[in-house]
Amino acid sequence: MGNCLVAQSGGPTSVINATVAGIIEANQMNPIYDHVYGGLNGVEGILNGRIVDLTHLTDFQCKILKQTCSSALGSCRYKLKRDNIQDFEKLMAILDQLNVDTMFYVGGNDSMDTVAALSEYAAEHNITNHRFVGCPKTIDNDLVITDHCPGFASAAKFLATTAKVTWLDLNVYTRQEVFILETMGRDAGWLAASTVLSGIVDLVVLPEVPFEKEKFFEEVKKILAEKNKCYIVISEGCKYADGTYLAAGEAKNDGFAHAVLGGAGQTLKNMLLEAGICERAKVQDMSTLQRCNIAMQSKTDVEESYKLGMSAHMHSMDPSFTGKMVALKREEGRPYDPTYFAVDANQVANFVKHVPSEWILDDYRGMTKEFYDYVQPLILGEPELVMENGIPMQMPPFYMRKR
Amino acid sequence: MGNCLVAQSGGPTSVINATVAGIIEANQMNPIYDHVYGGLNGVEGILNGRIVDLTHLTDFQCKILKQTCSSALGSCRYKLKRDNIQDFEKLMAILDQLNVDTMFYVGGNDSMDTVAALSEYAAEHNITNHRFVGCPKTIDNDLVITDHCPGFASAAKFLATTAKVTWLDLNVYTRQEVFILETMGRDAGWLAASTVLSGIVDLVVLPEVPFEKEKFFEEVKKILAEKNKCYIVISEGCKYADGTYLAAGEAKNDGFAHAVLGGAGQTLKNMLLEAGICERAKVQDMSTLQRCNIAMQSKTDVEESYKLGMSAHMHSMDPSFTGKMVALKREEGRPYDPTYFAVDANQVANFVKHVPSEWILDDYRGMTKEFYDYVQPLILGEPELVMENGIPMQMPPFYMRKR
Repeated sequence: MGNCLVAQSGGPTSVINATVAGIIEANQMNPIYDHVYGGLNGVEGILNGRIVDLTHLTDFQCKILKQTCSSALGSCRYKLKRDNIQDFEKLMAILDQLNVDTMFYVGGNDSMDTVAALSEYAAEHNITNHRFVGCPKTIDNDLVITDHCPGFASAAKFLATTAKVTWLDLNVYTRQEVFILETMGRDAGWLAASTVLSGIVDLVVLPEVPFEKEKFFEEVKKILAEKNKCYIVISEGCKYADGTYLAAGEAKNDGFAHAVLGGAGQTLKNMLLEAGICERAKVQDMSTLQRCNIAMQSKTDVEESYKLGMSAHMHSMDPSFTGKMVALKREEGRPYDPTYFAVDANQVANFVKHVPSEWILDDYRGMTKEFYDYVQPLILGEPELVMENGIPMQMPPFYMRKR
Repeated sequence: MGNCLVAQSGGPTSVINATVAGIIEANQMNPIYDHVYGGLNGVEGILNGRIVDLTHLTDFQCKILKQTCSSALGSCRYKLKRDNIQDFEKLMAILDQLNVDTMFYVGGNDSMDTVAALSEYAAEHNITNHRFVGCPKTIDNDLVITDHCPGFASAAKFLATTAKVTWLDLNVYTRQEVFILETMGRDAGWLAASTVLSGIVDLVVLPEVPFEKEKFFEEVKKILAEKNKCYIVISEGCKYADGTYLAAGEAKNDGFAHAVLGGAGQTLKNMLLEAGICERAKVQDMSTLQRCNIAMQSKTDVEESYKLGMSAHMHSMDPSFTGKMVALKREEGRPYDPTYFAVDANQVANFVKHVPSEWILDDYRGMTKEFYDYVQPLILGEPELVMENGIPMQMPPFYMRKR
């Protein structure tokens, strides 16, 4: 019997480790591999031979792994380039050495491209002893074909809850005020849009809809006239019709700015104040916390992420299973209970799933019923967290341990 | 029998409504007042006759009230000035009209000053039919005499958890990086300091310790040399030895800025990058969310806030009980189980409790064991939240209802 290897890549999520736990526990129940190895820091670490053995994690360790946010195996932004033959040769040699039958790669768009590239390389070079399987994850929910992406729902649940509670805070004073919540989502507005489930969002600005300043200001004015408050949610990636980001100042100087103008939320705040649309405006930029919140994991999301790992493990029993991503499917017209199926990784890589325009209301006024129906089942349920001194217990990262 | 009136003031907390629930349920068990009235938007609303009747809230409503963040009765920043006799006369007339024996005021420093001012006014004018009782709340934990303030622990628990999970996120990539978490706390550093309970904070900058740029940079360099990462927590109120705030740019232009420089965290980020101390730095400004987080309420905090309301109600049976604040006391050398006692409101108003300097380690390196021992018991336990469509159910604000 051979072994399998699992690694994580791209931006982490709150439930990304549940997929790893799913693979480990599937193999304990049905040991088709002698060892479940973990590659540290994605392909970058694997290329440097940084490997741990996850085969015999205990039930309790797997339970804690499921409630541990961010990538416990570490991540990388390293992209295998198809013309960098050296990397491919080195990786195959390492997989030979470890006797790896299947490499599972948990990630987003780029990671699915890595899965496609590796399986193509193997096919071209008649390498039949290594197979490559992708497991989707991204809070951005922008992968095509799969109904949704593990990680999205927990971020959505946290953001919708945050909208609800910060709206309550906004309203305690009688003064006129605007609140701006900034979410992630550079190309797709799923996260910003999902805040409407709080029931309190007045206006939502998505990357899918060009930002028209004057039109938007009119809406803010109308809402302020009616309520004296206006609650706005803005996606970091929102842009003008010409494609310029609202947060262009930040984007241009990313990381080395002398005068940082702030993100989209801060830009919008300044615009509103300068134009005299409102007297006060406050910004809550959710930043990193939205992709690693542990207090508002969706149980549905955790369990799907876990089952997706199990499903990937099961699918990999088929010796021809390579270059695939395991995806989620929702049966229309039935109670929500998704199934898992396989899709070619190259059909997913390098595409973006936008929020459908027919689900977006005019004038930034929110989302249609179809959108609510889509997101609502995903954010249901709360896992019981194991606590340690008042804080959710988190698995110490594998990449920090001495070998 | 007469009635009582309860109102809320100042910045809200995650558990401020539990005190109101405590007063309501205490009166249901021991009906010393015919009616429990709620004053909307603090003294400002009471002066405008904005009153609701809370006497007969159901058990379920009180349960939801306990898990509702921000002030369900609304708040105000209106301060009764001792020389504004008109306000005092008007308020007493309204209390006469409503036949109010006791007015409970839930708030921070300014609110305790209001309680003191009203009871002094009553004494000077031989008004014996109205009494004034303060209930402390503030996430800043800066009220003197009371061992700690309801609201602090839930914010501390949320911030410590946030530190833990964003640290995990920071570490997933191998690149050099600095993370800066900005917390509230303009005068006292309790909130920033409490993040050390996460066990991962490298450096913490409190308002209590003057910020020395070069000295601080040296510490960042040492930590980066050792770990390639540095996790910094900074209080919004941190300042140089001359008293200037790091976030002076923001402070000067508050709300009407044309060029907003950002808060203390953003300023520190820019300083680190400009001085070439690090290559990348990220800021998470916790902003409003830290005072209205509902996902990380401390059960200890909720219950103490609730019991404090009950205790205030009980104390108010004594017809001489006025100008007082109910406070928390911890018995040294015993398992944590605080008691409730009364203190003169004017002994609390206009003082600030700082983090004791002997609890602060040198070189921004965190806190002593005494600090951990002080905060640890406060953040224990998690209430079971009633959920509604995947989001914690929140009581619709009383101030938004049609009368």
